[in-house]
Amino acid sequence: MAVYTEISDEELIDFIDHYELGKLLSFKGIAEGVENTNYVVHTDKGTFILTLYEKRVRREDLPFFLGLLEFLADSGLTCPTPLRDRDGRIFSELAGRPAAFVTFLEGIWVRRPQVAHCAAVGQVLAKLHIQGTRFKKARANALSVRDWRPLYEQFGKQANEIQPGLAEHIEEELDVLEKAWPENLPRGIIHGDLFPDNVFFLADKVSGIIDFYFACTDMLAYDLAICLNAWCFEPDNAFNVTKAQGFLKGYASIRTIEPLEIEALPILSRGAALRFLLTRVHDWLNTSADALVRPKNPLEYIRKLRFHHQVSSAREYGLSAS
Amino acid sequence: MAVYTEISDEELIDFIDHYELGKLLSFKGIAEGVENTNYVVHTDKGTFILTLYEKRVRREDLPFFLGLLEFLADSGLTCPTPLRDRDGRIFSELAGRPAAFVTFLEGIWVRRPQVAHCAAVGQVLAKLHIQGTRFKKARANALSVRDWRPLYEQFGKQANEIQPGLAEHIEEELDVLEKAWPENLPRGIIHGDLFPDNVFFLADKVSGIIDFYFACTDMLAYDLAICLNAWCFEPDNAFNVTKAQGFLKGYASIRTIEPLEIEALPILSRGAALRFLLTRVHDWLNTSADALVRPKNPLEYIRKLRFHHQVSSAREYGLSAS
Repeated sequence: MAVYTEISDEELIDFIDHYELGKLLSFKGIAEGVENTNYVVHTDKGTFILTLYEKRVRREDLPFFLGLLEFLADSGLTCPTPLRDRDGRIFSELAGRPAAFVTFLEGIWVRRPQVAHCAAVGQVLAKLHIQGTRFKKARANALSVRDWRPLYEQFGKQANEIQPGLAEHIEEELDVLEKAWPENLPRGIIHGDLFPDNVFFLADKVSGIIDFYFACTDMLAYDLAICLNAWCFEPDNAFNVTKAQGFLKGYASIRTIEPLEIEALPILSRGAALRFLLTRVHDWLNTSADALVRPKNPLEYIRKLRFHHQVSSAREYGLSAS
Repeated sequence: MAVYTEISDEELIDFIDHYELGKLLSFKGIAEGVENTNYVVHTDKGTFILTLYEKRVRREDLPFFLGLLEFLADSGLTCPTPLRDRDGRIFSELAGRPAAFVTFLEGIWVRRPQVAHCAAVGQVLAKLHIQGTRFKKARANALSVRDWRPLYEQFGKQANEIQPGLAEHIEEELDVLEKAWPENLPRGIIHGDLFPDNVFFLADKVSGIIDFYFACTDMLAYDLAICLNAWCFEPDNAFNVTKAQGFLKGYASIRTIEPLEIEALPILSRGAALRFLLTRVHDWLNTSADALVRPKNPLEYIRKLRFHHQVSSAREYGLSAS
């Protein structure tokens, strides 16, 4: 939630000249996105988001991320559409960073999602998964099961500063998940980070999904597991089975969840909780006190992980036997 | 340049219901303004700025600041126009803070002002001064000559941590300025903070002036002195007399600068440089390392102060004898 890279009026005017965007009317740095710098830009052609990619996004991944957005927007999914410049480039360079324009989407992310929101997210995620199967590019998940242990080893026992016993708890989970992680589930493009702040609503309808910078090729059901973690717990970290049921029903109304996927949901959800726990612990221990962005509290994911740990069947996520 | 206060979708929807603003379409926190939290808000009636006033702006001053904006906008000056809610209130309460909507102004602030920009700013400042004489409310300058010594005494010799001898230099300036400060110059509403980032341009024309939260009743020529400091020095802190000449000519083309005002310019400019030096030193020494906003470097104003110190006549600011 910060502007990491300041740009000058002259730089931006030069940059915009490479697009069919007309005249610059105004630009404001916005406090959105943890990874990148974003500006809302008004030109006489409309409102756009300009993103400068900071170090966490690798330049070589941009053709995948931006190509995916362009493909999905063309397929009718409401996501930001990248603009190509006069030379047909989907991103170029501004202030020493890769930079891209995308269309501005109206909509509001919901701080306290209700069941109807969860159902709507389920539907849009299923549409994304179906459209994604036709997308030609692929990208390995950089935060999949095989990446968790190396990430853990970057901090190791230091995790116990956050909560005594946390390091051992993580080690046990790693041992279990590395063995039990499924392999043979339907794969395709997943969003990988579909948290409430990445879904815009207008009048209870999804008006846009954003922030595809964790998108990759992985098991589709892993995206369901991420959403169960992101959408279906209450602020006190109690699991809300009605929300999960709404989410899964919404999804299944568009794309059938296969029996093997259903069966794998508890282990995938446990893995998703561990994945966010690991990055949050890492960021918590590695963010200096004067950073522009406050790291997110990892404790929330310790509790979510405990919940999934004790789940014995996918029925506990509200899936009726079918 | 930060969002100090986060608001929820539900809070904002409730708040907007008190205005004739139609439906909320989106809102984004913007990285503008050091003092307050600002959001760009889209509704089906247009684009607006929502400001939440943080602790530096006193609630009892808001009727003056917002009343002045409303008055000036009505008089045809391009500044943000406050919106009144259905009960006629010019500000109310949101997330525990005073909050107000103003119209969004297109325009870009100029990082490297040229002579033409300085001339245009001179003109709009003169218009502000002329319109301001008809504004009924008054507000004492909270950062005028009598406030400088108490401000200095908050840090005192600690200033020498920034530059050896700085404390003694400030003390000498205070002694001189307190004695020599003029009293009998034309008074009225001054902006008090008309720096480049508070003036928007479109195609070299001023499209708006913003940030009236230092506006007060004081000597009009003091506003000229502030602008000489803010607009007429180069990045290497060399004074650019051509810019000063452009600024003063632009101003004088709208409002005559009186002989006593001309004569007072060197001492007023020295005072203005000291005023910004004092607040910057104060902020520099009192900002914790983990603050969301980096304080501005005070060294720039030490050099500007030195320049004005050696000026012997207003002619050195580019004013021809008239």
